[in-house]
Amino acid sequence: MDSLDVALGARSYPIHIGPGLIADSALYTTPSNQILIVSNEVVAPLYLSAVRAALGERDVQTVVLPDGERHKTLATFASIVDRLVDSRFHRDCCLVALGGGVVGDVTGYAAASFQRGVDFMQVPTTLLAQVDSSVGGKTAVNHPRAKNMIGAFHQPIAVLADTDTLKTLPPRELAAGLAEVIKYGVIVDAEFFAWLENAMGKLRALDAAALAYAIRRSCEIKAAIVAEDEREHGRRALLNLGHTFGHALEALGGYERWLHGEAVALGVVLAARTSAAMGWIGTRECERIEALITKAGLPTTATGIDPDSVLDRMQLDKKADRKGVKLILVEQLGRAVVSPAPERPLLRAVIAAASR
Amino acid sequence: MDSLDVALGARSYPIHIGPGLIADSALYTTPSNQILIVSNEVVAPLYLSAVRAALGERDVQTVVLPDGERHKTLATFASIVDRLVDSRFHRDCCLVALGGGVVGDVTGYAAASFQRGVDFMQVPTTLLAQVDSSVGGKTAVNHPRAKNMIGAFHQPIAVLADTDTLKTLPPRELAAGLAEVIKYGVIVDAEFFAWLENAMGKLRALDAAALAYAIRRSCEIKAAIVAEDEREHGRRALLNLGHTFGHALEALGGYERWLHGEAVALGVVLAARTSAAMGWIGTRECERIEALITKAGLPTTATGIDPDSVLDRMQLDKKADRKGVKLILVEQLGRAVVSPAPERPLLRAVIAAASR
Repeated sequence: MDSLDVALGARSYPIHIGPGLIADSALYTTPSNQILIVSNEVVAPLYLSAVRAALGERDVQTVVLPDGERHKTLATFASIVDRLVDSRFHRDCCLVALGGGVVGDVTGYAAASFQRGVDFMQVPTTLLAQVDSSVGGKTAVNHPRAKNMIGAFHQPIAVLADTDTLKTLPPRELAAGLAEVIKYGVIVDAEFFAWLENAMGKLRALDAAALAYAIRRSCEIKAAIVAEDEREHGRRALLNLGHTFGHALEALGGYERWLHGEAVALGVVLAARTSAAMGWIGTRECERIEALITKAGLPTTATGIDPDSVLDRMQLDKKADRKGVKLILVEQLGRAVVSPAPERPLLRAVIAAASR
Repeated sequence: MDSLDVALGARSYPIHIGPGLIADSALYTTPSNQILIVSNEVVAPLYLSAVRAALGERDVQTVVLPDGERHKTLATFASIVDRLVDSRFHRDCCLVALGGGVVGDVTGYAAASFQRGVDFMQVPTTLLAQVDSSVGGKTAVNHPRAKNMIGAFHQPIAVLADTDTLKTLPPRELAAGLAEVIKYGVIVDAEFFAWLENAMGKLRALDAAALAYAIRRSCEIKAAIVAEDEREHGRRALLNLGHTFGHALEALGGYERWLHGEAVALGVVLAARTSAAMGWIGTRECERIEALITKAGLPTTATGIDPDSVLDRMQLDKKADRKGVKLILVEQLGRAVVSPAPERPLLRAVIAAASR
């Protein structure tokens, strides 16, 4: 087992990475006797009993959600709170999010809001959740018209990234997680990006050592950025590379066409091409980014994307302020910056070129 | 105008108290151009136009809620968020809560959650909101089975307590606010309690100087406690004197029988009698508390209260933990403590005695 800390003073917490962690009683460090495990219909049959067993003789309740981003709603959030009230859970209870990003985000927001904030643990079972969404305390549900519009910053008390759970992950979900891993290389670590270019085959073949390193390095990068800027007043926004485009694509696809990571992959390509069109990165670097995304089994183009619809959706992005939409753009491989979005015609051309 | 600060480091903010404040443009210190005023159908016809005028040439939207505690729901919260999304409001927008405790609590929770947190201002127009709910950053909506179960700690950027607005307040609402004022005297300030014994007639007659002093002293006491214990890990719980009983009574009355302050008044009486029954305060002190509550026009008894229903509801209180329900009890006038609830028979007898 490998461990690192997210350094946030009194709200610091450990991330544990390794095989077999979900069955390790010693890692469930909550003193609480009242535990609500929230999972979904795909993950629960695989791992719920192991987590229950590890929690021992406590009062353990479970909520099993339907699978998918379209259930990341205020109604799902309310159903979790209902269960907490029905079970007469107290302020010293603890929630456990067992699943991917959707389960983690909605469970985290329920933990942030129930009685104005109770403890929760992240037990991510997808690569995307292990390298990104379970770390850093962003919790949210979607609004029908915009992603992650309703939420809170609420840090977990621990993250258990059990790498064994990736063995049951569908290849498409694994690839979606790799989009966020590649993102870290592009924004702050050219050396990690180069390592990924070599290791991508191993990662897709579930090589344990390669996966453990990719998860560790991704969490390290995220933990450092979050420690510096917990509430995204500055540098943390870099983690959103590809996400302004990506969120717009997800919404236009009704949260069903693409997995979050797939939309982000396409968004990273669009951000890279925008950066190239503005003369910031060269064609060669842009091609390396596209090639690595392709190698990960992720899309760099898509059919039937209407550029104006994408651009209109991007106006709703949370990074927008009274001065307009902001994008994360790439100055060079391993260095991203927050930038006002360029003129609409340039963006329209970049999006149009990615539409087959 | 009188002003004081709630000292919370980077989250510090001013409370301004005095006549005519809602029309003073200089007090709306938000740099934002996008403002959502949330009010209700009773307050909006009286004061909305003055607030709009003071906000000048900004993009000002309004949401007018129905009046009453039974609208302090997740559905109302969602309707505010809908308007923010529909209006394409950004992370740098600002909400203004214009009304009583219900408006302030639900608006504050919307501000806490929209895009994971935006600015908001409190413009309380009831005595209860001016002396209590607008100060300290507790925001929430009710769950059908328990009050304030879903919420956040989210501090406003300023509080404008315009004492002129109390002139239009129904006497019953004024009395409800006096319950919280009396509470401050009981928990930490015997001298203020004695002042209230003399000044109660003036306060009920809307004497401007007396009201301004009562509001100022109440806000000072609350601000000091909040600055010391923002998230209620300890001393802040004292502010809940009478509230464990009160919340149970409110819920049993369907949030319609009693105003919050009325239920709190009865709760303070029950807490005082419980303290006396345990031998903590003497009969004389208990009688002074009851006499002042009566003088304020508030109830000390009620018809048809079923003690067991009240006690069952109290189990849902947010201060309960795995060790059981906690109560705020009175050691002496001006000194309250957090205490495990005494045996059920004692509490049942105290509640039964208050039922006519």
